[in-house]
Amino acid sequence: MSEPFESKPMKVEFWFEFASTYSYPAAMRIEALAASRGVAVAWRSFLLAPIFQQQGWNNSPFNIYPVKGQYMWRDLERICDRLDIPLRRPTKFPRNGLLAARVVCSHADEPWIPDFVRGIYSVNFAEDAEISDPTVISRCLTSLGQDAAAILATAETPASKDKLKAQTAEAMERGLFGAPSFLVGGELFWGNDRLEEALDWAVRAAR
Amino acid sequence: MSEPFESKPMKVEFWFEFASTYSYPAAMRIEALAASRGVAVAWRSFLLAPIFQQQGWNNSPFNIYPVKGQYMWRDLERICDRLDIPLRRPTKFPRNGLLAARVVCSHADEPWIPDFVRGIYSVNFAEDAEISDPTVISRCLTSLGQDAAAILATAETPASKDKLKAQTAEAMERGLFGAPSFLVGGELFWGNDRLEEALDWAVRAAR
Repeated sequence: MSEPFESKPMKVEFWFEFASTYSYPAAMRIEALAASRGVAVAWRSFLLAPIFQQQGWNNSPFNIYPVKGQYMWRDLERICDRLDIPLRRPTKFPRNGLLAARVVCSHADEPWIPDFVRGIYSVNFAEDAEISDPTVISRCLTSLGQDAAAILATAETPASKDKLKAQTAEAMERGLFGAPSFLVGGELFWGNDRLEEALDWAVRAAR
Repeated sequence: MSEPFESKPMKVEFWFEFASTYSYPAAMRIEALAASRGVAVAWRSFLLAPIFQQQGWNNSPFNIYPVKGQYMWRDLERICDRLDIPLRRPTKFPRNGLLAARVVCSHADEPWIPDFVRGIYSVNFAEDAEISDPTVISRCLTSLGQDAAAILATAETPASKDKLKAQTAEAMERGLFGAPSFLVGGELFWGNDRLEEALDWAVRAAR
């Protein structure tokens, strides 16, 4: 029997950047974990570079602070081991996820987006291939039965470029400073470590 | 029946800095969690300032990057709520934990150290009082039945000062860049979020 006044969980916004290492396990996990709690997920791509630039960084902080970077790779290895997610340390880091982020931003509500996002993350962190290469992105779209040429053409329009810029500006305005981030209404959770907590928050906040 | 070749878990080194916010819940939790797994804990105080200075920071990164600081205080609030640990946001941050760190460093193997560490963290993060004040530290020691005057005198000797300097240098050499950190042999875990993982590692690594 259901509670008479039981209401639906809040939506969780999943904010990710394709270059972000800790976004990789979050992207691989979120759909199943959210579904198990009845939580809807909004997939929101954004760019970290403009946010990092505001903090005075012109590169990933994991490259600027090598001792932190060294730890991150080991930590990510342990995380992926535990979750049984394949990981091959990218020979290039960070990779440029701009085009892939535009694809997501301009097609965010399409049902193939979660598979596409996981596909691009796998290219970067499991296959060590170049996610900025349009042929790689095309192949990913085609494998999902999508019209790659049409989608890439849409992604390159001024409207699509503006949409990703606006979404990145929104991320900054709402206090995001890294990825992955999860927003449940105004409540911010940062990091793959906070995924479960964000989902639980969405369930509790509705009651 | 015990396994014929079962061996003891490895020791976990708990590296903490009294100014560090996320070290507070870790300090409050570690003893009971470690005991429940049969893991021994080495309590190792160190200073973050020299490590942050090497990264070009002359203040807490939570003050240098306010958007990150704002998030941290909210995140810490949620963590303490969930763990039922009292939190009053310090009106001064970061506070200077030098003297308290020297007390720990020069008496690290004394049985009262875990209580003393928790006491100082509570002063900073639950009572919002000044942990650099010798009378506050004395009161904490006295409440544990210790000879506060003798302990503070020892803490201020050149040998004690050198010991904390050497311990901080050791932290840097072993790749520490923040607090709390946990070392299990050469395996580094960073952050209150990694406490359980570090303890589990210590248990598994022994088998």
